[in-house]
Amino acid sequence: MTEQAAPRRRGRPRGGTDSRERIIAAAVDEFGEHGYEAATIRAIAARAGVDPALVHHYFGTKADLFAEAIGIPLRPDVDVPGILTGPREEVGARVVRYVLEAFERPEVRRRGVMLIRTAISSRLGTPLLVGFLSRELIGRVARALDVEDAPLRASLVASQIAGLLVGRYIVKLPALVAADVDDLVARIGPTVQRYLFE
Amino acid sequence: MTEQAAPRRRGRPRGGTDSRERIIAAAVDEFGEHGYEAATIRAIAARAGVDPALVHHYFGTKADLFAEAIGIPLRPDVDVPGILTGPREEVGARVVRYVLEAFERPEVRRRGVMLIRTAISSRLGTPLLVGFLSRELIGRVARALDVEDAPLRASLVASQIAGLLVGRYIVKLPALVAADVDDLVARIGPTVQRYLFE
Repeated sequence: MTEQAAPRRRGRPRGGTDSRERIIAAAVDEFGEHGYEAATIRAIAARAGVDPALVHHYFGTKADLFAEAIGIPLRPDVDVPGILTGPREEVGARVVRYVLEAFERPEVRRRGVMLIRTAISSRLGTPLLVGFLSRELIGRVARALDVEDAPLRASLVASQIAGLLVGRYIVKLPALVAADVDDLVARIGPTVQRYLFE
Repeated sequence: MTEQAAPRRRGRPRGGTDSRERIIAAAVDEFGEHGYEAATIRAIAARAGVDPALVHHYFGTKADLFAEAIGIPLRPDVDVPGILTGPREEVGARVVRYVLEAFERPEVRRRGVMLIRTAISSRLGTPLLVGFLSRELIGRVARALDVEDAPLRASLVASQIAGLLVGRYIVKLPALVAADVDDLVARIGPTVQRYLFE
């Protein structure tokens, strides 16, 4: 508890590197063993030998800790509401642009490709990613939509986005690799828009 | 050459099982080593110790042999033209229905899932599947469209179809698993239609 005594700026501790690293390692183990849904901050803290409050202090929510643990520098709790607000008729385009601009960054692409490969090829990784996607991305979008078939709508969006990422960054279909981001946003944005709202 | 002397009904030889099996095994090796584009019927025949004409006799084109070698009982040379003819405004719906009805068959789903997992997780499998997809599926669709950006249009279709298959049959997003085929055709068909023609 002494580590909590001196509050530090979030994500930029001036000390406690050991605790941070122990927490990340514990999170990787806990998520890997129990899946996203069942893993708890409390159990991760216990594994790391720290107080749960310290985990929240360093990493925020379970979603943030997961994103940090798998090495994807995205913040669904911050990013998803940002994408969904703003002009409603442009939500589809914003979703596609957000994902593509993230994956154009080498550090996101590298880890993202690894994560997608793992999720699709291993029976262990699949429930983990699906749990995260369902709760943090599809769930957030679905709640924001507030219509009866929102989970299906959000899942259709996920299917197109996943297919785009696989096609452009993993199997590398030549025409998808050659296309620029603006062109892909113009072509795929209306699909996402229709899945969400029409 | 003696094996060719007595013509047999295609796909149902009353003998020559050994030759058929040797050809399949040779095809798996040849496609695996050289990729879809570079593999030739001639080289496969040489590996199997048979005449190239016998390979054609038993298996038809290279695409058919590939489909047989990977165990997917689909015939792109027959199926794709069938999907693309008929009312143009229903092509998108027919594409989605064709793929879903194929994957609802357990033997297609089992092998298809295995193939997708392998292609996405291994660097070896990826070029093989992409070569096949590019030449036999995307290429056929693109040629039939006869517009300048046809390869991109066909690749966008491939991205949505791949994402649908991954979402419904591999990572099993609950809402995509629960949806019935007609509903998915109604929602995704217009996407395919727009990618192809609009």
